[in-house]
Amino acid sequence: MVGVQERGGKVGYFITLEGPDGGGKSTQLKMLVPKLRERGVQVVTLGEPGGTALGRAIRRLVLDPGCVICPQAEVLLYAASRAQAVYEVVLPSLREGKVVVLERFLDSSLAYQAAGLGIPAREVLDANRLATGGLEPDLTILIDIDPARARRERLRGTRDRIEGRDEEYQRRVREGFLEVARKHPGRVRVVDGSLPVAEVERIVWHLVEESLRRAGVLRDEK
Amino acid sequence: MVGVQERGGKVGYFITLEGPDGGGKSTQLKMLVPKLRERGVQVVTLGEPGGTALGRAIRRLVLDPGCVICPQAEVLLYAASRAQAVYEVVLPSLREGKVVVLERFLDSSLAYQAAGLGIPAREVLDANRLATGGLEPDLTILIDIDPARARRERLRGTRDRIEGRDEEYQRRVREGFLEVARKHPGRVRVVDGSLPVAEVERIVWHLVEESLRRAGVLRDEK
Repeated sequence: MVGVQERGGKVGYFITLEGPDGGGKSTQLKMLVPKLRERGVQVVTLGEPGGTALGRAIRRLVLDPGCVICPQAEVLLYAASRAQAVYEVVLPSLREGKVVVLERFLDSSLAYQAAGLGIPAREVLDANRLATGGLEPDLTILIDIDPARARRERLRGTRDRIEGRDEEYQRRVREGFLEVARKHPGRVRVVDGSLPVAEVERIVWHLVEESLRRAGVLRDEK
Repeated sequence: MVGVQERGGKVGYFITLEGPDGGGKSTQLKMLVPKLRERGVQVVTLGEPGGTALGRAIRRLVLDPGCVICPQAEVLLYAASRAQAVYEVVLPSLREGKVVVLERFLDSSLAYQAAGLGIPAREVLDANRLATGGLEPDLTILIDIDPARARRERLRGTRDRIEGRDEEYQRRVREGFLEVARKHPGRVRVVDGSLPVAEVERIVWHLVEESLRRAGVLRDEK
């Protein structure tokens, strides 16, 4: 994988929020983006996973409980959504030196489809190479959450096709995320999603601020 | 790639019809299938490219002139459609010993997306490995047609997103198909799509009959 710094001439920074459902990624994303903007950082985000027009259409397909989709097709659909986000939004924004913050990227495919559905990680990565063009986040914040706890959160709403899978599947997904974190200790930072939201927010901000400072995107205020 | 004969215990036969738009593939498919059934062959077909429920939904997306889709996402969407066809229809039918006839398979991605859009063939093949599971047709009939001639046919109807691309693109697509034929002379047979429909039908039937006889699917009638 190629870190964005090495992609000739660009100075942007690519942050992803990852983790099982129910850990509060969307909430954290919504709080993080305005804080970065207050600090004068030019931030681009999609607001939701795969949130281009194509990504939304694909998401409707994938989450429809009535649509028959084999695991291989599911991997490829998420990869298509990712490709559109990368080429329409992420790469152009990074080239302009912006900070891009996404909810879910390649790590989610490794967790949900390789670890969760049992598709060999090698095949998931091969299918996604075209989607990412080798782009890897500079910083990934993994909000870890126990599936039993996440399930209690979910029971308040209706369940889509993915969330309807059993708890054993959700446990494999969580383990898949933690495995990614173990393999990429320099990139992935794990945050305990069972902590109070404000506490998670504080830790996320600390990690982001530290990384952006190190990258020279944020400077000390005196 | 793995020929279906080698896939342990199966006796089916996998035929694909390929070629640029306007060569008459659909017409030939509609004439071929009943002729095979008359000869007592158990035939399974999807009737249209990627014709599962998921495949139809993806096709609506891809052909919508208003939907922004980057070339990489296009490759992955067709691959997803192909995966669903392979795992829902093609592999189960071949395992039951049936003859499967499809309009468009991997060769179309090599022609339209590698040759046509300029995505490296290696990347198209990598993305499709998950979709096909290594399955390769036993016989491919490539109905070749000059794009200028095909264009005259098309002008009778409305044009979708793919057909709206320029003639230079269509020429690269045709060349891509012919390149596949040169690389796989044992599998791919080229038929001149500018011949009268009945003549193409006669040649297609000759090729199919000969191949099915050699494979022991059809026997001589005395």
